[in-house]
Amino acid sequence: MRLSAEVAANGVRRALDYAHAHRADFVEELKEFVRFPSISAQPEHAADVRRCAFWLQNHLRRIGLASRVVPTSGHPLVYAEWRKVPGGRTVLLYGHYDVQPADPLAEWRSPPFEPAVRGEALYGRGACDDKGQLWAHVKALEAYLRTAGALPVNVVCVFEGEEEVGSTHLIPIVERHRRALHADVAVISDMRMRAPERPAITYALRGALSLELEVRGPEKDLHSGLFGGAVHNPLQALCEMLARLHDARGRVAIPGFYDAVRNWDASERAYLARTGPNDEEILRDAGAGQAWGEEGYTLYERTTLRPALTVNGIAGGYVGKGAKAVIPSRAVAKLGFRLVPDQDPAEVERLFRAQVARLTPPGVRSVVRTGFGAVPALMDREHPAMRAAASAFERGFGATPVFLRSGGTIPVVNALQEILQVPPLLMGLALPDDGLHGPNEKFHLPNLYRGIDTFIWLLDGIRRIRSESREQQPLAGASRASASPKRVRTGGAR
Amino acid sequence: MRLSAEVAANGVRRALDYAHAHRADFVEELKEFVRFPSISAQPEHAADVRRCAFWLQNHLRRIGLASRVVPTSGHPLVYAEWRKVPGGRTVLLYGHYDVQPADPLAEWRSPPFEPAVRGEALYGRGACDDKGQLWAHVKALEAYLRTAGALPVNVVCVFEGEEEVGSTHLIPIVERHRRALHADVAVISDMRMRAPERPAITYALRGALSLELEVRGPEKDLHSGLFGGAVHNPLQALCEMLARLHDARGRVAIPGFYDAVRNWDASERAYLARTGPNDEEILRDAGAGQAWGEEGYTLYERTTLRPALTVNGIAGGYVGKGAKAVIPSRAVAKLGFRLVPDQDPAEVERLFRAQVARLTPPGVRSVVRTGFGAVPALMDREHPAMRAAASAFERGFGATPVFLRSGGTIPVVNALQEILQVPPLLMGLALPDDGLHGPNEKFHLPNLYRGIDTFIWLLDGIRRIRSESREQQPLAGASRASASPKRVRTGGAR
Repeated sequence: MRLSAEVAANGVRRALDYAHAHRADFVEELKEFVRFPSISAQPEHAADVRRCAFWLQNHLRRIGLASRVVPTSGHPLVYAEWRKVPGGRTVLLYGHYDVQPADPLAEWRSPPFEPAVRGEALYGRGACDDKGQLWAHVKALEAYLRTAGALPVNVVCVFEGEEEVGSTHLIPIVERHRRALHADVAVISDMRMRAPERPAITYALRGALSLELEVRGPEKDLHSGLFGGAVHNPLQALCEMLARLHDARGRVAIPGFYDAVRNWDASERAYLARTGPNDEEILRDAGAGQAWGEEGYTLYERTTLRPALTVNGIAGGYVGKGAKAVIPSRAVAKLGFRLVPDQDPAEVERLFRAQVARLTPPGVRSVVRTGFGAVPALMDREHPAMRAAASAFERGFGATPVFLRSGGTIPVVNALQEILQVPPLLMGLALPDDGLHGPNEKFHLPNLYRGIDTFIWLLDGIRRIRSESREQQPLAGASRASASPKRVRTGGAR
Repeated sequence: MRLSAEVAANGVRRALDYAHAHRADFVEELKEFVRFPSISAQPEHAADVRRCAFWLQNHLRRIGLASRVVPTSGHPLVYAEWRKVPGGRTVLLYGHYDVQPADPLAEWRSPPFEPAVRGEALYGRGACDDKGQLWAHVKALEAYLRTAGALPVNVVCVFEGEEEVGSTHLIPIVERHRRALHADVAVISDMRMRAPERPAITYALRGALSLELEVRGPEKDLHSGLFGGAVHNPLQALCEMLARLHDARGRVAIPGFYDAVRNWDASERAYLARTGPNDEEILRDAGAGQAWGEEGYTLYERTTLRPALTVNGIAGGYVGKGAKAVIPSRAVAKLGFRLVPDQDPAEVERLFRAQVARLTPPGVRSVVRTGFGAVPALMDREHPAMRAAASAFERGFGATPVFLRSGGTIPVVNALQEILQVPPLLMGLALPDDGLHGPNEKFHLPNLYRGIDTFIWLLDGIRRIRSESREQQPLAGASRASASPKRVRTGGAR
């Protein structure tokens, strides 16, 4: 074993040397990658998305992976694998090569698909989200393959082309290829660090449940002059119902809603207070002057430990120029729950429907439609793979990562956990000011270089996870957060 | 005097005979009128609107009126006059030659601009609203001019081309030509009868006040995963505020809102109960299963004697397909008040703004924008012109008209009252099932024929209003409803 450890250490060293020597090349290649306007949301860019997929597949092949473009009825997925360590660990790398639309174009300092380096950053749509972060993984693989001619672990790559449009076809593919995709751990780099020198590992995500609440009244739109005051207005009824879904103290007013919410002990809350952003930082981030929400919790807790309900949109009546005297026959609200351990989307939906039935006033009817559901995700900070990730960050960035909770939901994390039973390591390289989804998106190039180093260390770290721990406790499945994770639905919500 | 009365009676008889003899011609001409797709809302039909205006102007000239097309920065207005009775009464005829869009086209049994007679009705867009009703007036004038060679009274015609888009340019024109447009009485036929044999005179209209309430929160849209539960959502705040604008008993919950509302005595309420639709009829008309609103009043009273507040539309957040995790930075509601004597739009606006200030929760800001305002209109049922209108209906339709209140608002009525001080006679010829604004709009041709007869009688009746009553009480100004009618604003609301 000692010899092989030396060989391995030597392998890491040679891979790091290779990576350091080729940084300029990596940036040039990334620019080539960013040049594809692979905007998944815009049908006129479908051919660009496809060309980008083939370019990526070809690149993976050239560095030594078996790769192919997997067609879907939407945009294709790029699959690649290297499985030459029989009995060794397997790492699944997830990323996406599609990008957000580039609007508003006028606000870009340089064209979004003509990547340009200014200062320490590469500017361009997708430079960070997620082409740049994905690139750090690909280049870590290349560094091993071009030096040792082998990887320390088996690797499976799933790079999708529909992340920005809801990962519609990913989950059925994952379900169909459950066996082929089995891995010990998954690594996802599509999220933020806290600052350039402060790497972070996200260990908790909130679950989600998106619903539509429609209120129906008269058979057709009525003239509000002729009927105003005599017939209930579905739009007003909807407002009245929505207003009653929170109490005066900022809590969700649905009987039973908090029953399954896990109570955390003082030590976890102290950990959050020590490691997370404070109220002031969150408000500054939000561009909001004042806090709101559930009493007795910090804003970091309210957005991570505690569930939330947001009215995401309302459609009803006339909203064009001027005025129109209408009592609309129907009105719809789009609602988004964020759920925490041990809440279950199906149970929350049941409670919501019961409350809607209670709140619906006479004279109108309510219809609830279910959208996307995802159970909350929670990874054990003490899990050996988490320790390997922390150690890799320490070596790559020279800084101990913080463990963060996120209030968001990542559907693919859900799929990895629920379908593949693979614990995900969420190791983002994006900075808070990288402008994801906005104009002048950038990638901080030191994060590319340090990210490559980190992932070189990570692959070796995962190789070294002792086999006894593997037997004691399979890596897979160790990350279940919910007591009753019943289903994953496809859908667009994050 | 006796001789002149005989001459006059003879004049009415000859005009009626002419009208009866030319019914088929009148229908053919009306078809020609309906063939113009004079859709004021659709810019691609601007030339059609213009052609229709010139056609109408030419027609009025041919029957003996001095007429011209008055350009506006929108669609033109057709003005015509005949002023050859020095010292005689003057009647202002208002109508509109523009029409609603014809969508949905697929639902028309015959093309909307290829007028077709089926059964007793003429089908086509505008056949009733308002070309057909306007035609009844024009043909009554023709009947006199082609027989006696003169009208019993002076006549001023104002036929606008922008009624379906808010009468934007009418009011400034009326203000500018205040003197030229002065009249003893105005007649408007752009509303409903109760049934084919049941003519009606509308003697009350509610006033209106349209407002926008915008709630602003964070500087930009936020991710509801990351910030849900920590920052107040303007869309939710808006719902909470709107929910509080009515109390549990269906009353508008704005302090002071009912202070100026006139209390009617038992006899007026009994008159309404006797003449107006009952709750069942109103609900059937509305296609609604259940009543709503202010306790202690019938539905007819709630929509006429009592004021109302309707949420006409809400815009906020994401309302496209699927879901989007957003806390919108702003949300807007369009609100429409209907006001009754002696409420004043300016005072209601002040009370509304004060209440909004009280209801706005911490963490968001409210902005109120004012749209269209109109004072309520109320005509004295005992006014000599009203008696003349009732008598004309009795002769034309063989049935005593009912006096109705309408819950709606007609901006031009407001302009006639407030600017010109002319009492308006609202003598509609539309049937409840004529499908105004919808597909298969029709005009019940017996109503055209009886309408022409009615208006022949009406002109003579107005001539005969005794001069003493004119001196005692000028016809103009007798119809003021509001104690403080301060202004009329242009705008699109009805």
